[in-house]
Amino acid sequence: MSLLVIGTVAFDAIETPFGKTDKIVGGAATFISLAASYFTSKINLVSVVGDDFPQEAIAMLQKRKVNTDGLQIKQGEKTFFWSGKYHNDMNSRDTLDTQLNVLATFDPTIPAEYQDCEFLMLGNLAPSVQHQVLDRLANRPKLVVLDTMNFWMDIALDELTSLLKRVDVLTINDEEARQLSGEYSLVKASQKILAMGPKYLIIKKGEHGALLFYNDQVFFAPALPLEEVFDPTGAGDSFAGGFIGYIAETKDISFDNMKRAVIFGSAMASFSVEKFGTERIQNLNSVEVDERVQQFIDLVQFDISLVG
Amino acid sequence: MSLLVIGTVAFDAIETPFGKTDKIVGGAATFISLAASYFTSKINLVSVVGDDFPQEAIAMLQKRKVNTDGLQIKQGEKTFFWSGKYHNDMNSRDTLDTQLNVLATFDPTIPAEYQDCEFLMLGNLAPSVQHQVLDRLANRPKLVVLDTMNFWMDIALDELTSLLKRVDVLTINDEEARQLSGEYSLVKASQKILAMGPKYLIIKKGEHGALLFYNDQVFFAPALPLEEVFDPTGAGDSFAGGFIGYIAETKDISFDNMKRAVIFGSAMASFSVEKFGTERIQNLNSVEVDERVQQFIDLVQFDISLVG
Repeated sequence: MSLLVIGTVAFDAIETPFGKTDKIVGGAATFISLAASYFTSKINLVSVVGDDFPQEAIAMLQKRKVNTDGLQIKQGEKTFFWSGKYHNDMNSRDTLDTQLNVLATFDPTIPAEYQDCEFLMLGNLAPSVQHQVLDRLANRPKLVVLDTMNFWMDIALDELTSLLKRVDVLTINDEEARQLSGEYSLVKASQKILAMGPKYLIIKKGEHGALLFYNDQVFFAPALPLEEVFDPTGAGDSFAGGFIGYIAETKDISFDNMKRAVIFGSAMASFSVEKFGTERIQNLNSVEVDERVQQFIDLVQFDISLVG
Repeated sequence: MSLLVIGTVAFDAIETPFGKTDKIVGGAATFISLAASYFTSKINLVSVVGDDFPQEAIAMLQKRKVNTDGLQIKQGEKTFFWSGKYHNDMNSRDTLDTQLNVLATFDPTIPAEYQDCEFLMLGNLAPSVQHQVLDRLANRPKLVVLDTMNFWMDIALDELTSLLKRVDVLTINDEEARQLSGEYSLVKASQKILAMGPKYLIIKKGEHGALLFYNDQVFFAPALPLEEVFDPTGAGDSFAGGFIGYIAETKDISFDNMKRAVIFGSAMASFSVEKFGTERIQNLNSVEVDERVQQFIDLVQFDISLVG
């Protein structure tokens, strides 16, 4: 049994107040797979790149035990490219350039060996492609997690809405939750979104942490207060990767285990923002990960005994 | 031994997306005293009002066991008045009117019976007046907590800076921490501010919770996700009141106890915003307070055992 990750594998060019990159390796599925690889070892990737994508980047994923048999390499075509510039507060950014390239015609094929998929992470992509992946799996996975963004709410809301009925966990950010629900209060927004299909909703608030909603229960995980947020690109995907990687390894989809998974996801996001692109989450060791999780425990742990 | 609270007792007129009030009772010391009264019983108030201030409001404070002997009532003068309007997101507001009235000449007198002060809460006021209160106490209290705001950083920075060397705990919001330190990162800001004098720093982030810094340690308390924030006025003061009230009752100024105090403060702030002005925190019962604190425990509690 395995974790299937689908999403973009891409080139990014990023500008932040701290510096600027040329084309570096990015993409939702890249961050998700890398972050998940610290928790579970059977990760199958489905994505597409052009023949300009460096073999070393694929080798880097394989070194982290990510199976890339489902990564299509389109000869004579170019890899998806995104370029963006972050503002001083790091909470907002402008997209400078988007070149869909191979993504424009992406037809996801699921290798036969991937059909034992128990956990499915649908990273950010067109909802129609995310639907296709679900259609092409012989059996519905035990848990389906969907990440999406405001762009698809703008141009493909119907497909997204029908997709919501097919997933178990939805992860979006606070502004997207407001857009999708039409409610400013995140508590009200969560109620409306949970009524649209998913059993669990995770609202990511960037430097302000993340909320996990389930029925009328709510769990909050803080973001780690950092001296510098160097590059927020991929933080949400690293969060999703840590989350689903932990769930896939423990095979426990209870609310209590999802709380733990949210903390592991938050830990991976906190690493991701410390350097450009995937640099920080390529070569972590388990001691670093444990120490980081311990920082989260110390950050929120308090001891109050109420006399009932 | 007792808790001494100094700050404004005032009239507010508030406009929010949910409605609008005429002049209602407000003021930092009012919110602080009320919030503290759920945790400790010996609260001494020092403030000033005009003869337009209603006797019923003073009786309301006394009913909560707040000693008002130090509340000066200036005949022929008017109570401090503030009027403000909140924007749709409730995170920003415009001041519509400020009438200092009795506050312009406030000379804080400390009744002899207040001299047993063990815990001092310097609510938001001119730093010169906060200095005077410290000068007029025969003995330095065991713990001095200071609340201030950006207005005093703009017009009385020198007095504020010297005051910081005389206090143990400073509570300010995130924007004020950035202004005072010149640092955007709250971690960097906290390092600079702790070097200015206070041993503990609490940075209040409104709906995004609060951070407690001490040496190189940090504790985070979330805000409770609420369906509606009805009126944010007094939330920070209610937080400070719950915090200092709990510390005064337990007489424990360790970092671990301050964490608990931050949670109790957060609970009082979460009540305060549910209705206009002091309405919600005038008549709570201990079951409601305990239930609310339990919600905070449930909100952040998770169970991760790391194998060292």
